[in-house]
Amino acid sequence: MLERCRALVRPALREAVGRTHPWVGEMAAYSFGWCEVGGAPATVSGGKGVRQALAVLGAEAAGAPGRVAVPGAVAVELVHVFSLLHDDIMDGDTTRRRRPTVWKAYGTGPAVLAGDALFALAVETLALAPAGPRAVRLLSAALQDLVRGQAEDLLFATRPWTGPERVRAAEYRTMAEHKTGALLGCAAALGALLGGAPPAIVSALDRAGRHLGIAFQVVDDLLGIWGDPAVTGKPVHGDLRERKKTFPVLAALDSPVAGRLSAVLESAGEGADPGAAAALIEEAGGRAAALAEARRQVTAVAAALADVPLEAGPARELRSLLDFLVRRDL
Amino acid sequence: MLERCRALVRPALREAVGRTHPWVGEMAAYSFGWCEVGGAPATVSGGKGVRQALAVLGAEAAGAPGRVAVPGAVAVELVHVFSLLHDDIMDGDTTRRRRPTVWKAYGTGPAVLAGDALFALAVETLALAPAGPRAVRLLSAALQDLVRGQAEDLLFATRPWTGPERVRAAEYRTMAEHKTGALLGCAAALGALLGGAPPAIVSALDRAGRHLGIAFQVVDDLLGIWGDPAVTGKPVHGDLRERKKTFPVLAALDSPVAGRLSAVLESAGEGADPGAAAALIEEAGGRAAALAEARRQVTAVAAALADVPLEAGPARELRSLLDFLVRRDL
Repeated sequence: MLERCRALVRPALREAVGRTHPWVGEMAAYSFGWCEVGGAPATVSGGKGVRQALAVLGAEAAGAPGRVAVPGAVAVELVHVFSLLHDDIMDGDTTRRRRPTVWKAYGTGPAVLAGDALFALAVETLALAPAGPRAVRLLSAALQDLVRGQAEDLLFATRPWTGPERVRAAEYRTMAEHKTGALLGCAAALGALLGGAPPAIVSALDRAGRHLGIAFQVVDDLLGIWGDPAVTGKPVHGDLRERKKTFPVLAALDSPVAGRLSAVLESAGEGADPGAAAALIEEAGGRAAALAEARRQVTAVAAALADVPLEAGPARELRSLLDFLVRRDL
Repeated sequence: MLERCRALVRPALREAVGRTHPWVGEMAAYSFGWCEVGGAPATVSGGKGVRQALAVLGAEAAGAPGRVAVPGAVAVELVHVFSLLHDDIMDGDTTRRRRPTVWKAYGTGPAVLAGDALFALAVETLALAPAGPRAVRLLSAALQDLVRGQAEDLLFATRPWTGPERVRAAEYRTMAEHKTGALLGCAAALGALLGGAPPAIVSALDRAGRHLGIAFQVVDDLLGIWGDPAVTGKPVHGDLRERKKTFPVLAALDSPVAGRLSAVLESAGEGADPGAAAALIEEAGGRAAALAEARRQVTAVAAALADVPLEAGPARELRSLLDFLVRRDL
């Protein structure tokens, strides 16, 4: 199903990237996994294409053919890659999908520019589509939330583990909704909008995507601590070493062991074995709280979808895509 | 007249910046000269506000009240500051209007994010305005050109002074149109569009702004070599020291002294007195060619404006603003 959506969207996505300056277009193509540095064709994975699939299924769930969602699918994929390019600069991440990140391969300035180009292409693609103004409004609201989420996430790193200035679970939820949920919700909602769906369906799909984003992020946090590195592709305990304020950690810090845990977290950041921190987080209920949170958000996704009349077949595909995303290895 | 336009647009501009995350909003406010690092109110100049004035005058020249142009004026000012923020990162510039650039004051990552936020706010502002889809289309075409112009400019630096790979004057013109002209043209055109002008007026104003951009850039190049540093605020011969491929230099390299000039330009970049390079450029006709080019572009601006019926008063103000911009200290 993901492959069907990618095949449907690919020509328009390539056409959009082809509209920008060739040098900038190469950086975009590198990000999508279409080429190597220098432009030679590549056969690496450019990601699952979840957002484009949500757009296509959003249109189909509203009773329209998937192809009407293509401009929306192109726009959300372009925005997604734009945000990866810029976030990798902000976070200092040097690899993504086992290749150097764009700023590492091409330089920071060019990577900033390539992100800007993708952003501009996304807006242009939607502005040229028939559903025009409402579609651009949906996208720009999601863009605002993306920026907000990234700002919140960057600021989390500057705050203490304990005390009144600590990061609360509710703030984490808001950050994850902004940073991950807004674009997932926008993808499905745009598909429905381009498919001519009534406002109730558009906003139900938006809501579903936002809950999905929180669930996805919490699951990612769980895998970052207790996942199998062979499956996740991430270093074991990487999030603990980097002292990230993930949901299981924040939940554990709401328990009586907060003082002891914050000391262990500091030492995990300074090279000590982070296994002790992982054990303490589990003992303090952080793992269970995160699992419960993920389940709550998945239930909210299902409730949002059950709220409106959707075509049975596409709605089933939508649900199985959501399940696939959050139940990965739990 | 600039002050009248700034006063008309300021409340909506502040409201737009207020819609983003407060931390990101502070970086935006710092860029506009509204505050210092940390948020304390500032009383420094945030620039002349040429683009917002073009939008307001564009509407008035089309017979509409200036206030209908406000969403367009806000959008182009936001895009302008977005491009300054990101260009300063790409160019490694550490000061702007005698203050540290945003990336220097807040860090590269936060400056990337603040630029993204301004970009998103600009799109949102126009998407919410009545002229919706056509306005967003105009803006997104200008955004594409901005990216193209910045890419072209960055790549100029990697090319040789002489030989078949050298940068031609025609390429410079295209770069300047993209990098500077597109947003100036978009500003005036957006004002006219929001003022309900017919397509002929919208595109004439767009064309005028594009020629203005080239003229402005060539004049800037002239001032960068022969301008009075006390007036321009730029270091004397700064562009020569940085080995920038400016119009007077490119024109001089089309003369028989190209070989000698390229050697002098190299040594000027390596610390030797760039006065010799300036003299050689003048001797080779680079200064005269640039002045002629600026005059040609100014004539093209006037021709574009004469091509369509405009309200006499605002058209006069528009012409005097254009004159003010290109005749600065020549």
